Amino acid sequence: MAETFFTVEILPDGTKVRARAGEVLADVLVRAGLPLSLYCRQRGVCGKCAVRILSGPLPFPEPNEAALLRDRGLGPDHRLACQYLVRGHVSVETLPGSRLEKIAVLDAGPPSAAYVDPAVKRLCLVLEKPPLRSPTAVADDLRARLKSPGLALALPALSKLGGAALGPARPIAAILYDDRELLDIEPDEAGRELYGLAVDLGTTTVALELVDLRTGQAADRVSAVNAQASYGADVVSRITFAFENPDNLRRLRTAAVQLVNDLIGTMCRRTGVPRHRIYDAVVAGNTAMNHIFCGVAVDTLALAPFQAVFSSLPPFPAADIGLALHPQARVYVSPNVKSFVGGDITAGLAASGLAAASGPALFIDLGTNGEIVVKKGGEFAATSTAAGPAFEGMNISCGMLAVPGAVDRAGWAGGFKLRTIDDLPPQGVCGTGLIDILAVALARGLLGRDGRIQGPEKRLRLTDRLSLTQQDVRDVQLAVGAVRSGVELMLREFRVKAADLDRVLVAGSFGSSLDLGNAVALGLLPDVPLDRIAFVGNSSLAGARLFLVSRPARAAAEALAARIGHVSLAVRPDFQEEFVRALEFDRYPKGDS
Amino acid sequence: MAETFFTVEILPDGTKVRARAGEVLADVLVRAGLPLSLYCRQRGVCGKCAVRILSGPLPFPEPNEAALLRDRGLGPDHRLACQYLVRGHVSVETLPGSRLEKIAVLDAGPPSAAYVDPAVKRLCLVLEKPPLRSPTAVADDLRARLKSPGLALALPALSKLGGAALGPARPIAAILYDDRELLDIEPDEAGRELYGLAVDLGTTTVALELVDLRTGQAADRVSAVNAQASYGADVVSRITFAFENPDNLRRLRTAAVQLVNDLIGTMCRRTGVPRHRIYDAVVAGNTAMNHIFCGVAVDTLALAPFQAVFSSLPPFPAADIGLALHPQARVYVSPNVKSFVGGDITAGLAASGLAAASGPALFIDLGTNGEIVVKKGGEFAATSTAAGPAFEGMNISCGMLAVPGAVDRAGWAGGFKLRTIDDLPPQGVCGTGLIDILAVALARGLLGRDGRIQGPEKRLRLTDRLSLTQQDVRDVQLAVGAVRSGVELMLREFRVKAADLDRVLVAGSFGSSLDLGNAVALGLLPDVPLDRIAFVGNSSLAGARLFLVSRPARAAAEALAARIGHVSLAVRPDFQEEFVRALEFDRYPKGDS
Repeated sequence: MAETFFTVEILPDGTKVRARAGEVLADVLVRAGLPLSLYCRQRGVCGKCAVRILSGPLPFPEPNEAALLRDRGLGPDHRLACQYLVRGHVSVETLPGSRLEKIAVLDAGPPSAAYVDPAVKRLCLVLEKPPLRSPTAVADDLRARLKSPGLALALPALSKLGGAALGPARPIAAILYDDRELLDIEPDEAGRELYGLAVDLGTTTVALELVDLRTGQAADRVSAVNAQASYGADVVSRITFAFENPDNLRRLRTAAVQLVNDLIGTMCRRTGVPRHRIYDAVVAGNTAMNHIFCGVAVDTLALAPFQAVFSSLPPFPAADIGLALHPQARVYVSPNVKSFVGGDITAGLAASGLAAASGPALFIDLGTNGEIVVKKGGEFAATSTAAGPAFEGMNISCGMLAVPGAVDRAGWAGGFKLRTIDDLPPQGVCGTGLIDILAVALARGLLGRDGRIQGPEKRLRLTDRLSLTQQDVRDVQLAVGAVRSGVELMLREFRVKAADLDRVLVAGSFGSSLDLGNAVALGLLPDVPLDRIAFVGNSSLAGARLFLVSRPARAAAEALAARIGHVSLAVRPDFQEEFVRALEFDRYPKGDS
Repeated sequence: MAETFFTVEILPDGTKVRARAGEVLADVLVRAGLPLSLYCRQRGVCGKCAVRILSGPLPFPEPNEAALLRDRGLGPDHRLACQYLVRGHVSVETLPGSRLEKIAVLDAGPPSAAYVDPAVKRLCLVLEKPPLRSPTAVADDLRARLKSPGLALALPALSKLGGAALGPARPIAAILYDDRELLDIEPDEAGRELYGLAVDLGTTTVALELVDLRTGQAADRVSAVNAQASYGADVVSRITFAFENPDNLRRLRTAAVQLVNDLIGTMCRRTGVPRHRIYDAVVAGNTAMNHIFCGVAVDTLALAPFQAVFSSLPPFPAADIGLALHPQARVYVSPNVKSFVGGDITAGLAASGLAAASGPALFIDLGTNGEIVVKKGGEFAATSTAAGPAFEGMNISCGMLAVPGAVDRAGWAGGFKLRTIDDLPPQGVCGTGLIDILAVALARGLLGRDGRIQGPEKRLRLTDRLSLTQQDVRDVQLAVGAVRSGVELMLREFRVKAADLDRVLVAGSFGSSLDLGNAVALGLLPDVPLDRIAFVGNSSLAGARLFLVSRPARAAAEALAARIGHVSLAVRPDFQEEFVRALEFDRYPKGDS
């Protein structure tokens, strides 16, 4: 039998496409490159894919469809594209609010976007009274109404369903997690806000965003020094602390969780968003940090062969680890690649779009650890280098975090010319300032290529009060050398020349405010044309936000984390030699100085 | 290409079967009607399907296989049937301990059996050290070792995996739930006990069994009056009480949960089994009882159209409702058929094997409610009749529960001849005693067919102190009439004549001690040859035990509960007429009196 085809004209674009008789209009629009909202995935229960039927067949809508259209203030010539079957030539107008919305993922760096398709959704509906003769169970009615036969219902939500306040024939709202679990149910008038929490759980700094799950936009952002720092400045010292005594694990966990709870409180006060309107949290941290945050012992990370306990973790209740959100809120932990390449990197890769790069590409996260990921063809490999806390301004005699008063840039005008954050009097030097100072000192001959301070004073005097000692210079030199040798060895492992790199993505807040020329000249970044280098900012936090807002991004990240190979540089025979070589500032004298 | 076949000789049976080259020996044995243990479902991780290879190829075993065989004290000529591939003619001897074990389900009644395949299993293993170069996550090693790639791990279990006590190269034991979740992990020497809890949550009586999940046998049994009774004797009064005030729901729930926790304590003391060795609980109760036990509001059960909130419920953590078992123990609630036919009936049907009956069959559970299920061909339908508490001896002037001192049987020898439980002096009359007394009184003409007490005294005098009033007789008459009319109408609905019933299964502890002849003569049971009637005892408790021990039985019960139709007798036009007719004791005078 010959199939019947009809023409679908799509306005305002004016596109015309052919559709098979009986085809779902939403599918036709996708084929025409005009995807509509994925909010309820074509189950006809959210009303977000409404279109206007300008001409063509217009059958009566189902009562639920009519209610959803009315709820959006739309007239009788509108229909849900996911429920409309093409039965004749038709002319439709798409509505701005029905199109699939893209969100920007990164604050800085290369453009990257995702569609809004959060794990947590809120669907409004009215349950009808069942027949008296054979009453169905309320939960089964809800499953049928949401077209989710396998929907799991938490006991508290079930109990509300059995309560008088949510009886049939009243508008109620179901809060769903990943289309498979009912987190809560409430009268529709309870308010439509729906928030998520993105957590970048850094060793030094913890950064949070309160994310509107309806739009994918951050409503507020806050950060603070990781309260675990009092138990150890770096990851290794915290692992050691936790290993000493099971109580210490609890202390570390409590410190981090309390800090996050406090910071949530700050954002809730500032924005007026109630805590119980936060239904989902995504945590991106390095392997040790996310283990400790989940209360998982890290003894196996303390001793060879340095095993993580988990790589990927299914979402679990936030209440299980004491996060004060909605009582049924869930936590998703960004999957770890391996013991020393954590979920923060997976999140960063997802946000920075490394996987989408066409040629060979490099991702470097410059923090206390320097994580390096190389992509070549379809292959990915990651490694971690112990840069130490110098880039965070730690362990440097006059070092400090990148906060107001810190020297963050330096040049030369007959002496060091310093810039400070917020133009306050210089109180110390943060990571980016250290890079500039060393670059200037090398260019001016105050520092030898071997990192030795020239002249009798053995100090780089910055102001009357501030100076860098030989030890300070050595610490920065070691940090730079660790990253540089890591990059060189990873490129060698993949047989990629630095010059062939299409793209170098530099993550971390340190990275984002770096002087590119100085960083390359010093050897911290590979020697590629500067326009191939992009700073992507706190890509760990951006990735956490992405995972809140996009379920497909989570699935892709899980697959990517499982696929990335791990390279243990220390077991390579050329590791020592390369590291020693990387300590030399051999790109000096610079061409331009 | 022609396939190659080999002969497999199976001893001690002496059976010979043909096997394709490369076929798994365990599958060959299943085909030969000799199924082996399903414990780990052919993943080669439990060692329970070991056989002895008497002749034929004997390749070296894998290290894990060798360890499992050693653990069972078996020699080098043994192999796991699930790992052994047939590569030549082979002669094998099955071991008694490797065969799939059947358990008896019911204490009384028709034989019925299931294979031991519990939701909770304990598997012993040794994790190997991963390579230093690229260490895998411990959880991933465990998943690979258990051949369960999707295994979910609760955070506390994960934390133990990360602890020093369970490092690689030590024998550890994984406690799995339904092959998909790790409940706990412990050193193997922690003890191999594995228990489950079966709960029959009756309106009047709560009965518990502590079940050894390795054998399927009850280690202990205990029962007590439902502590909720102080808030109302029957289901309706408890629903009403819960409906009045949300705090009342909590009171009811707490009463039941505390009672169950106390009874668990009693069994644990008596048997020496620690609470934390109980990993699974199955609760079978009527719809209102299981809702309340789970803390789910029952407002929708209080008002028309009398909706249950849930029918089937995925297993959830026991800690969520305050049951004091292993911290990660799960609770499975036997699925409800409909609002007034609960999980106790589903459990009873599963245990009594109604689904397996060949001809038309009837299942009657005689409790405070009389639930009736008819089977005809592949169709099932259920209804519930309000028998009231008379069968439990409640609301009768001299009534009492079936406890020591209760009159449980009666005959005639120039006056009522009474038997009491434990031969104590008669303190009151329980349900079975009431049936006998009415039957005797009818046979002796002390009672008219309309239930009126003959003679001036208007009492049936039993002893100096005990007698039944007209009101007592009326209550029993109403209870019998409710069940009788329910049975008549259900048979009419299904166009089945009582005489055509192949099997009548009578459940409930009341039912089990009933005098069959009297029950039929009085009209409580349908008029069929007595050998077609079987008492199945507390089939709700037996079903709960079955669900603990057999996962396939759970799956079958879920399917059955979803399939059973519900008949609302009260909306039938002939309901009133039939009920009035059923109040007449029209089978008197009996043929034999």
